[in-house]
Amino acid sequence: MRVQVNRKAHFNAAHRLYNPNWTPEKNEKIFGLCNNANFHGHNYNIVVSVTGEVDPETGYVIDMKILKQIIKEQVTQRLDHKNLNLDVPEFKNIIPTAENIVFVCYQLIKAVLPENLDLKITLFETERNSVVYPA
Amino acid sequence: MRVQVNRKAHFNAAHRLYNPNWTPEKNEKIFGLCNNANFHGHNYNIVVSVTGEVDPETGYVIDMKILKQIIKEQVTQRLDHKNLNLDVPEFKNIIPTAENIVFVCYQLIKAVLPENLDLKITLFETERNSVVYPA
Amino acid sequence: MRVQVNRKAHFNAAHRLYNPNWTPEKNEKIFGLCNNANFHGHNYNIVVSVTGEVDPETGYVIDMKILKQIIKEQVTQRLDHKNLNLDVPEFKNIIPTAENIVFVCYQLIKAVLPENLDLKITLFETERNSVVYPA
Amino acid sequence: MRVQVNRKAHFNAAHRLYNPNWTPEKNEKIFGLCNNANFHGHNYNIVVSVTGEVDPETGYVIDMKILKQIIKEQVTQRLDHKNLNLDVPEFKNIIPTAENIVFVCYQLIKAVLPENLDLKITLFETERNSVVYPA
Amino acid sequence: MRVQVNRKAHFNAAHRLYNPNWTPEKNEKIFGLCNNANFHGHNYNIVVSVTGEVDPETGYVIDMKILKQIIKEQVTQRLDHKNLNLDVPEFKNIIPTAENIVFVCYQLIKAVLPENLDLKITLFETERNSVVYPA
Amino acid sequence: MRVQVNRKAHFNAAHRLYNPNWTPEKNEKIFGLCNNANFHGHNYNIVVSVTGEVDPETGYVIDMKILKQIIKEQVTQRLDHKNLNLDVPEFKNIIPTAENIVFVCYQLIKAVLPENLDLKITLFETERNSVVYPA
Repeated sequence: MRVQVNRKAHFNAAHRLYNPNWTPEKNEKIFGLCNNANFHGHNYNIVVSVTGEVDPETGYVIDMKILKQIIKEQVTQRLDHKNLNLDVPEFKNIIPTAENIVFVCYQLIKAVLPENLDLKITLFETERNSVVYPA
Repeated sequence: MRVQVNRKAHFNAAHRLYNPNWTPEKNEKIFGLCNNANFHGHNYNIVVSVTGEVDPETGYVIDMKILKQIIKEQVTQRLDHKNLNLDVPEFKNIIPTAENIVFVCYQLIKAVLPENLDLKITLFETERNSVVYPA
Repeated sequence: MRVQVNRKAHFNAAHRLYNPNWTPEKNEKIFGLCNNANFHGHNYNIVVSVTGEVDPETGYVIDMKILKQIIKEQVTQRLDHKNLNLDVPEFKNIIPTAENIVFVCYQLIKAVLPENLDLKITLFETERNSVVYPA
Repeated sequence: MRVQVNRKAHFNAAHRLYNPNWTPEKNEKIFGLCNNANFHGHNYNIVVSVTGEVDPETGYVIDMKILKQIIKEQVTQRLDHKNLNLDVPEFKNIIPTAENIVFVCYQLIKAVLPENLDLKITLFETERNSVVYPA
Repeated sequence: MRVQVNRKAHFNAAHRLYNPNWTPEKNEKIFGLCNNANFHGHNYNIVVSVTGEVDPETGYVIDMKILKQIIKEQVTQRLDHKNLNLDVPEFKNIIPTAENIVFVCYQLIKAVLPENLDLKITLFETERNSVVYPA
Repeated sequence: MRVQVNRKAHFNAAHRLYNPNWTPEKNEKIFGLCNNANFHGHNYNIVVSVTGEVDPETGYVIDMKILKQIIKEQVTQRLDHKNLNLDVPEFKNIIPTAENIVFVCYQLIKAVLPENLDLKITLFETERNSVVYPA
């Protein structure tokens, strides 16, 4: 009996979309307002989905208190109230688009999740824009 | 032309997480606040997802009025304003975690759903915690 | 690295569920209140999900500004503030149920989306009723 | 001890904004897309706010079951799945803008509410547009 | 320059509506499903609204971290994962209706809030039912 | 017949809470994570509430298309995808707390709103934190 368990969390961060290999004109053309050199920001909502067998002793796939703690240590404490470009080493060489942020969050959580559990992450950058990895 | 149709409903219930084969200390350690002997409760939101071919005569996979009635008879009338541990026979021998509740709801609805329709259930225990079966 | 990107939009429309091959009595029996000859209406929310490889240069699966523009041209400008039965040619011969609307939206967007991108559409007719195509 | 009690309900309706004393050109200029002769529609959410003393015997300002029934009889059954312009006598001589709809709902509920209770109505025409009466 | 500051929190609890001075029949008639002797429960959302002058040095009416801590100590730690009837002394002699819960929350927070700040509390018992005190 | 009309909009911005008259230690102590020198950010939701008489010719307090345009010109185009501290002259000498942002938005809109209309602004900095001016 496999069940998917979802836990929602959030963090606030500043970022800027900018490719250092491009001219300012190309950055402006491709990234538009998101290229503002002084940064802008978002309230990110993240939904962490973990799938596995239900333990008949506990009735849990994973204890939500443990999953909550994993999200806090691996994602929230690293990204919340941060400038993704300047404060977060994972984005030193990649552009902090929603696609890349969700991938980084996936790797950070996957690294500490028990191996028998499958992982999927959904990240909302705004109420209207979200991404899912793996697709 | 297969389409997935989703219908949302809700019910309020009290419950307690408790394994009768464990000592009080182990129950307290594993289930924490959820082990309160006097129960606590939730507003559960359930999303019932039914997938099948669209009938060209009606443009429906299933008439929403029928699906609404199935959810009412199979889930809401059994669980709403109830104590899951004490009032609902399905939880006599299983712990009413979100994982087990979603599985019980799946079985109750599957039992009366036309066989040609696939079923998936999402259950929100809080705004931040939800489960999906089958995964 | 494949990521699913979701963009939400909305439109308001009037519609009526009615099968011209049926008697008024059968239409009334099957479609109930939705059969009102003078129409009723909804605020439709649409979530367009596009899946593909992340471009390492931009960090994007698809530029959200482009996806937003596609949704506007293909869906919103055709359906917003319209009577689906009377004003929208796509529903001339099919009943504008949620199932058929989501299929029409899929076809309209698929026609202009780059071929290497997969497409899925979720349509909310109300907060409680939604459909997904392909299932 | 005065408390405000709020109850939310919803109805779906078609409408058209149109002033019969104006030329088609002026109607088009003022009401734009909302002037579509074939109607468009919305999912209206209504929040009915009733204020009064808490009855020490029941702990209620008003029994929610009674308030729910009043909203159903006075508002939902009259407006749900209707064309406001054609099917609802209250809008025979007034334009069904959100402002006028909230005023009509106020009058319909006020007529049957116990006199010692104050009434305020909030009406959401979309997620982004709402009105309150009395202001 | 007076501004109202709102902070949202939540707690889960079980409760039962029951007046010990009434017969079981009268309790059943007035409180219906909410009278279930084995309790039911809710996810309560509380919005604490504090109004006062903005401090020109901090730009704050009240530091949100302080308000968050007050809500945690006065409301959440007392009510979360509790049975309101059995575990919370404040409801020993009053029925835990939404009206009475919001009044208890008001008194608990008012007792520790600086005197120059005005207080208003909104409590959502479900998505559709809420109360405000003072009205 | 006075009605309150509400229009919701949103903007994304980076900011930092910092008082230049204080030592770094005091800034850190008072503003905590919000003092990050590299900025963080939010998705701000703004609800603009305008109250006035309903025009019997249009059924409007104010044409929503006009109100939408006012919000766009006065608020969104100035604040969206901006660094409030560095890019917005209104915050040159005041700290961009939610309290001060809502006051700036009020002044920007009040300056162009017809004098016979009353104005109130609600600003959500996160789902849990919001402010209202005037209180």
